[in-house]
Amino acid sequence: MKEYLAARQKLVDEALDRLLPKVTLKPKTIHKAMRYSIFAGGKRLRPILSLAAAECCGGSVEAAMPLACAVECVHTYSLIHDDLPCMDDDDFRRGVPTSHKVFGEGIAVLAGDALLTFAFELLTLAQGWPRYPIREIVQELAVAAGSRHLVAGQVVDLESEGKKISQSLLNFIHESKTAALLRSSIRLGAMSANATPAQLRNLSDFGRSLGLAFQVIDDILDVTQTTEKLGKSAGKDIAAEKATFPAVVGLEKSRKIAQKLTKEAREALRPFGKRAELLLGMADYLLERDY
Amino acid sequence: MKEYLAARQKLVDEALDRLLPKVTLKPKTIHKAMRYSIFAGGKRLRPILSLAAAECCGGSVEAAMPLACAVECVHTYSLIHDDLPCMDDDDFRRGVPTSHKVFGEGIAVLAGDALLTFAFELLTLAQGWPRYPIREIVQELAVAAGSRHLVAGQVVDLESEGKKISQSLLNFIHESKTAALLRSSIRLGAMSANATPAQLRNLSDFGRSLGLAFQVIDDILDVTQTTEKLGKSAGKDIAAEKATFPAVVGLEKSRKIAQKLTKEAREALRPFGKRAELLLGMADYLLERDY
Repeated sequence: MKEYLAARQKLVDEALDRLLPKVTLKPKTIHKAMRYSIFAGGKRLRPILSLAAAECCGGSVEAAMPLACAVECVHTYSLIHDDLPCMDDDDFRRGVPTSHKVFGEGIAVLAGDALLTFAFELLTLAQGWPRYPIREIVQELAVAAGSRHLVAGQVVDLESEGKKISQSLLNFIHESKTAALLRSSIRLGAMSANATPAQLRNLSDFGRSLGLAFQVIDDILDVTQTTEKLGKSAGKDIAAEKATFPAVVGLEKSRKIAQKLTKEAREALRPFGKRAELLLGMADYLLERDY
Repeated sequence: MKEYLAARQKLVDEALDRLLPKVTLKPKTIHKAMRYSIFAGGKRLRPILSLAAAECCGGSVEAAMPLACAVECVHTYSLIHDDLPCMDDDDFRRGVPTSHKVFGEGIAVLAGDALLTFAFELLTLAQGWPRYPIREIVQELAVAAGSRHLVAGQVVDLESEGKKISQSLLNFIHESKTAALLRSSIRLGAMSANATPAQLRNLSDFGRSLGLAFQVIDDILDVTQTTEKLGKSAGKDIAAEKATFPAVVGLEKSRKIAQKLTKEAREALRPFGKRAELLLGMADYLLERDY
């Protein structure tokens, strides 16, 4: 699985390098800032899931790639804006200084804006499919990234700082902030393979469960791991009085929830039989990670 | 012309009210913030130009409306982010407090993000046209709003503060920051009328000249008008040592440039004959405005 992920990461990195505007393009600052954050050591989890979902439905890496890269641009934009002083105020991400520490706050805001916009430009490189024309593809990403999902999660997260919140509100935050885009990356991959409605439904369920499991584990790692290992400030959630699973339901119950979600994710893949092997392998890998 | 603009403004306002997520939708804060800035007294210049361009090419207001509203969402997002303390640091816009003064910086960043994302969702409501399928429509807006145009202008504007810059760099800023989106609003309107390539070319030229004229006049008004009349802080450009036409070439030459650009805009419309009357009227109106 580690080798597979490394090979896929390389493929995605090469595609991003080919597709993103060159740094020689005017104004250089913004293209440097866009590339700085895109190539700041991301694991490419979301695009790799897009590619694996496409293959699981009989599609190809080539057809899924523009969509996979678009999701990574949206993910990176959201990290740049989340790290701003007026949001989570983070100086490090993936072990390197965050965009606003390197380029200043103004350029960091604009680099996020530019990456979000570029994601939609990337979608227009997709070929379009009988069941999923470009209209559906754009709608899928716009809804997942918009005020009812990705942005919604960050809003409620911001508003919950320092407050005691319920497990259901915490679920809303995690579903919006993490699961929605992760689910969408899997759906977009499936769409690029012209998936049947049933296939798309099963993969959506998989994506939602995996996305939630992923975020619960992220919360757990924040309290159990070191800054060095995580590549970002450990214990930051507690210091900021962030809404996290360990804070709301305790560490032990958080672990159980993550295991239950991973089980649900595996079950959603059952109809695919052997074709889901890669996605199953990734689910296990994500549950067992320690960074 | 004033009556026409008021009637059109009302049409656009009604469409935006119908299309934007309701404030009752969770999380309320973000939908309140999105609507606050959208309904903070904008003149709807860009969407009205979209509608007029559509009609000039034999299209309809109904078909152009989702695209017109999408452009207004992009315009409003760019104002919210431009007004942030880390950018132009403006407390007032269109006579009312800016988003970050009302909702705080974090929510203001997210409201901009949400409006930008929503603009692309709006594009998917368009019907698509033989010469301009949804793919072309999305590409048009993504390129105009992206790192080579709208965002590029803001980047160079930020980098030029307090510096002496050349007239050609100032032109680059104004072309990117103002003319690109204004031109695109006209192009999108024309596309919704399935315009011929020649019609689209002529309207593109019109849009570019009008957009530049509009920004030069904006620069002039900043030094000649009062804060009360403008609805935003007058003299702000000088105080911030902003790159403006009066600062670079003087007030008298700025006025001549604006007139020359408006003449070029009028000439680009000649092939349309009487059908361009509304667009011509708007061009004159914009040149002669004093707020």
